[in-house]
Amino acid sequence: MTDASFQPIAAAIKATLEGQGFTRLVGAEVVSVEPGVVVMALDRRPELLQQAGLFHGGAIAYLVDNATTAAAGSVIDRATRSVITAEYKINLVAPSTGDRLTCRAEVVKPGRSLTVVEAKVFCRIDGAEKLVAVALATIANLDRTAS
Amino acid sequence: MTDASFQPIAAAIKATLEGQGFTRLVGAEVVSVEPGVVVMALDRRPELLQQAGLFHGGAIAYLVDNATTAAAGSVIDRATRSVITAEYKINLVAPSTGDRLTCRAEVVKPGRSLTVVEAKVFCRIDGAEKLVAVALATIANLDRTAS
Amino acid sequence: MTDASFQPIAAAIKATLEGQGFTRLVGAEVVSVEPGVVVMALDRRPELLQQAGLFHGGAIAYLVDNATTAAAGSVIDRATRSVITAEYKINLVAPSTGDRLTCRAEVVKPGRSLTVVEAKVFCRIDGAEKLVAVALATIANLDRTAS
Amino acid sequence: MTDASFQPIAAAIKATLEGQGFTRLVGAEVVSVEPGVVVMALDRRPELLQQAGLFHGGAIAYLVDNATTAAAGSVIDRATRSVITAEYKINLVAPSTGDRLTCRAEVVKPGRSLTVVEAKVFCRIDGAEKLVAVALATIANLDRTAS
Repeated sequence: MTDASFQPIAAAIKATLEGQGFTRLVGAEVVSVEPGVVVMALDRRPELLQQAGLFHGGAIAYLVDNATTAAAGSVIDRATRSVITAEYKINLVAPSTGDRLTCRAEVVKPGRSLTVVEAKVFCRIDGAEKLVAVALATIANLDRTAS
Repeated sequence: MTDASFQPIAAAIKATLEGQGFTRLVGAEVVSVEPGVVVMALDRRPELLQQAGLFHGGAIAYLVDNATTAAAGSVIDRATRSVITAEYKINLVAPSTGDRLTCRAEVVKPGRSLTVVEAKVFCRIDGAEKLVAVALATIANLDRTAS
Repeated sequence: MTDASFQPIAAAIKATLEGQGFTRLVGAEVVSVEPGVVVMALDRRPELLQQAGLFHGGAIAYLVDNATTAAAGSVIDRATRSVITAEYKINLVAPSTGDRLTCRAEVVKPGRSLTVVEAKVFCRIDGAEKLVAVALATIANLDRTAS
Repeated sequence: MTDASFQPIAAAIKATLEGQGFTRLVGAEVVSVEPGVVVMALDRRPELLQQAGLFHGGAIAYLVDNATTAAAGSVIDRATRSVITAEYKINLVAPSTGDRLTCRAEVVKPGRSLTVVEAKVFCRIDGAEKLVAVALATIANLDRTAS
């Protein structure tokens, strides 16, 4: 796929994500959409935190859910198929004490009916990116043309 | 543990959850806290949805994250220990088209350092509770007194 | 489905499982096959253990893999479809010090393309059944008639 | 850690794995042990297969369980601590039709009480290594000196 032919796909995915009510509520940003790789980010605000002042696990899971599904959606034939999250596992590996979360989701195995996607979430703490979560997701491909 | 002795613990857990910035942002409610079982709920609002009008997966994951961790927290000695989410897996099993999500988290195995918790999320659709997600979580117990 | 009509299905599933090379190697037994529920078991032998004398995690995972997939296979139309394990998560929650493992897998949500199955593994220790593992699996349904 | 100082640790880990009853039963091989990375392999034999002639999922899970736990064990202070599998998730992403499985497990985040490890399993099919499984594991560190 040439870069040029992917541009409208990237724009459509970004527009879909940024148009979600929940995305606007949490204030997330789609940093980049490439074939098989989606990056999203979220800046610290008091309403994204839990009681100890860390980013809430739910905010981290929101990024993982959206970025992994969008990464899978970037490698399908969008004319005939759509994607939906089947499941994911997330490990929270360090406290998110910093000022910005960035989630990078990358397809490890595209498939006809299921796509497997890995994600890593980093928190910018004192200017350095620190790994705070790791995830592994299964995204289902739906046939838009199925009766 | 008698019901009476658990009341202050339940109240403390409820206050912690409801005081989180993210909980106030999404507008979740702590329905009940019993030893080993926590129920949380979330009513439909446009800002909790994704592009197809379903509850966003991130909102469902938020409930799972909070309710499983709180359930684990309800069975520890809170004077000496605290809880933190280590990891969880979530399966989204049906579309959340309804007007209210309810997540019930229940401890399946308390442990000295790790507690395993199951969760089920139901969506009220046309008045009936339908299973929309299933989760399995590992919650770590931290020693408050450790140096 | 009447009990009588399910008998040949149960027999076919049991025969398939017990005919696997790996099942014969580990020496597992199919205890029962009912619609949506499969029970398998494994008796202690030195070749199923790890270095501390516990049942090896791989033996426990073998039971979970087979029993969850078979449970999903018990609720599909076997004339047109077959099942394959997509993924599972397993928590090992207590040491398997006893003399027999029993895994009970139960469908929580059958679906057109994916079936979600829970499993619990018990170890018989001094005559009592103790929970030693909990799992959550996603099984894919394949269309046998697809080109 | 110098290469020289790690040699006895690698040898001890390899000896422990290869001495397990289950490892001898399945016939697995410890290919290499480096700090944070363990590679294990398994050659095709009829008794490692399922009914369609693929490597059984249980054999793949055995490799993941052992290699991830050993990788976590390679980064702890073995004088005072030991490791035990807490949980893992495994995605089977392609059929294992080939003649040899190789599992590479790598620590992504060592921790004081929990270590998170990723694993990828490849199958050699017609001479080429093909990805057949991806896993994400949580390994608990136990204090040998705890009462």
